[in-house]
Amino acid sequence: MPNLHPLSGSVCAPQGFRAAGVAAGIKPSGGLDVALIVSDRPATAAAVFTTNRVCAAPVIVSREHLQDGRARVVAVNAGNANAVTGSRGMDDARRMAQVAAEAAGVPVDEVIVASTGVIGRFLPMERVESGLRAAGRELSAQGDGQAARAIMTTDTRPKEVAVEIAVEGRPIRIGGMCKGSGMIAPNMATMLAFLTTDAEVWPEVLQPALLAATERTFNCVTVDGDCSTNDTLAILANGASGVRVAPGSPAHAAFCEGLLHVCTHLAKELARDGEGATKLVEIEVRGAPTTVEARQVGLSIANSPLVKTALFGNDPNWGRILCAAGYSGVSVDPARIALTLCGVPLLRDGAPVPFDEATTSQAMKAPQVRVELDLGLGEQSSTVWTCDMSYDYVRINAEYTT
Amino acid sequence: MPNLHPLSGSVCAPQGFRAAGVAAGIKPSGGLDVALIVSDRPATAAAVFTTNRVCAAPVIVSREHLQDGRARVVAVNAGNANAVTGSRGMDDARRMAQVAAEAAGVPVDEVIVASTGVIGRFLPMERVESGLRAAGRELSAQGDGQAARAIMTTDTRPKEVAVEIAVEGRPIRIGGMCKGSGMIAPNMATMLAFLTTDAEVWPEVLQPALLAATERTFNCVTVDGDCSTNDTLAILANGASGVRVAPGSPAHAAFCEGLLHVCTHLAKELARDGEGATKLVEIEVRGAPTTVEARQVGLSIANSPLVKTALFGNDPNWGRILCAAGYSGVSVDPARIALTLCGVPLLRDGAPVPFDEATTSQAMKAPQVRVELDLGLGEQSSTVWTCDMSYDYVRINAEYTT
Repeated sequence: MPNLHPLSGSVCAPQGFRAAGVAAGIKPSGGLDVALIVSDRPATAAAVFTTNRVCAAPVIVSREHLQDGRARVVAVNAGNANAVTGSRGMDDARRMAQVAAEAAGVPVDEVIVASTGVIGRFLPMERVESGLRAAGRELSAQGDGQAARAIMTTDTRPKEVAVEIAVEGRPIRIGGMCKGSGMIAPNMATMLAFLTTDAEVWPEVLQPALLAATERTFNCVTVDGDCSTNDTLAILANGASGVRVAPGSPAHAAFCEGLLHVCTHLAKELARDGEGATKLVEIEVRGAPTTVEARQVGLSIANSPLVKTALFGNDPNWGRILCAAGYSGVSVDPARIALTLCGVPLLRDGAPVPFDEATTSQAMKAPQVRVELDLGLGEQSSTVWTCDMSYDYVRINAEYTT
Repeated sequence: MPNLHPLSGSVCAPQGFRAAGVAAGIKPSGGLDVALIVSDRPATAAAVFTTNRVCAAPVIVSREHLQDGRARVVAVNAGNANAVTGSRGMDDARRMAQVAAEAAGVPVDEVIVASTGVIGRFLPMERVESGLRAAGRELSAQGDGQAARAIMTTDTRPKEVAVEIAVEGRPIRIGGMCKGSGMIAPNMATMLAFLTTDAEVWPEVLQPALLAATERTFNCVTVDGDCSTNDTLAILANGASGVRVAPGSPAHAAFCEGLLHVCTHLAKELARDGEGATKLVEIEVRGAPTTVEARQVGLSIANSPLVKTALFGNDPNWGRILCAAGYSGVSVDPARIALTLCGVPLLRDGAPVPFDEATTSQAMKAPQVRVELDLGLGEQSSTVWTCDMSYDYVRINAEYTT
């Protein structure tokens, strides 16, 4: 996209946003664990939440607050998910929103709250509250880096992105941060992503734009129907750029493209930094009757522990990929399938192609591995991202709370 | 069941069956890898096969041969799945049946063939054929132990069971063997199970009886819709006991009970010996509107890598269990859920119950761990079995072919 320029930073790159990240003592490590993102002016907002029936208290509170399509504060804690905590958890989430609202000087229903960490424990509210107040005092236009660190759990690095897009000569900016990192299967740890933009985008435009970008990005790293209790993706649009994104306008197209770019970057970072990951795996499924079926096959492969362990072992055991396609629920025809791994053709018309295992295994040692599957059934395609499954995945998750 | 007596051995425990297991050089280890099970007299047969769209050649051939409800030979090789091998794989599977038929002296359409091992490689037919001929020469009524070893892949031990049931004073016997062992998720390695009985059971009785037992046993160790390319469960009934299992008779009830016992034993052994397993995990879901929904919730928990790694780490991180119930697709109500782990109540009416983590973690170190989840929504229940996910799971599957 020629008129899209990368910027440093994340949610503070767009005009009129400040952020902060502080250590409130919620994480046993003593690391940063409370983040605040604030728009200096009124903002519209949209969000996508977990579809898990067991959804966390902050998700319920944020849904309520977003009913009018407006919000200008995001308040987050890491280290405790405030999920499966009954009515006390609901009280705590509401209190968290209230304290954040006071710290930012906005009405409480303009606050989105999010929590991530261990499930089933009550929030240490004294620490959360003092953390939010401290974050309120530290808000700055350079605070996004700290905020991005404060939302991390088992992530090994913060995930930030920002772009500027020229719309008929006038710039708008979109920034974002996210945390994973248990993206190794769809039932993994919480995904939180927070985006900001200084474009003016009305709620009826913002929500569909966010959903469309999500379908092709976050929902392609297996964070979809099978998501955690706390998954939250939210965007604030404060209009500080003076550029309005009217439906069907050139600004609309540019905004959607910029949003897709930001979401794609973050989604791939989630996969690349999956728990214990040693490599990013990109799976492109082509030749499907529909994009939905292409993605379904891709996610089935991406979620297979057998495929993921083989990728970790640099083992071109491609039968496991075919097997996962076979049980995806899509009516694949084995006799039509073609498969390429790291550029090496392995299967054509459903029959094995002779290949050099040592060379292919060597190619699999790259930090990014590409799987291409052509179903031979249609014209549609979808790309999904995942990572391999290593010893560290087991270590991280066997030792999480105790 | 008072009139059910355990016997030693497996498929040769019923009268009129012989078996053998030989080393044919298919497994790189040089271990036993070709098995033959033969009824000395005509037999009826029933089977349940994989529902994977990418199903292996031997599955297609066995389905054809079972159309008339009759078979008296089971021929198996381990070390190579003969899956995704195109038309040459089909030729090989047919040839395997033909050679087994000649070795056993029966028509080819009375042979069930099965293969397990790596996908996407052609069978070494010379070795398979000489192995089948050698097995034919070695058939004996004491050969079931060798046969049970010959069907193993990553299994750490053979899995055998046999029982005698008295039906109005006359004994019938049922025996069985199976192999896993990647039962850690529903998309795992091949499950093969072969049962024999000396009861006389017509095909129209045998197939429903097998399906009913499967639903409550093998389909509760997550080997169901999401199964491998080769999954096969077959039973031969040769009538050598002289006892006929007529529909609705006392013999019918006794036979079904015996079959359930045999299948339950084998299913639990599969879970207990899952790849890298350090413990058997039994998950009972109660209070569901239907048994199907109870099982769906149980399997969702049983398949969660986060739950499985926590079980490996003896970590009572029960939030992961709730989370997996939440995304099971069943409309659970978090406020009604009760959870017990190793007999320790952790959750009541959707809220955490204080518990001693150290004691609970200690209890989780047992070789068998029990999870009880009451959904509070109805009267139905289901029990599923699985195992934990350890470092060895990753090791085994990262190093399988290379």
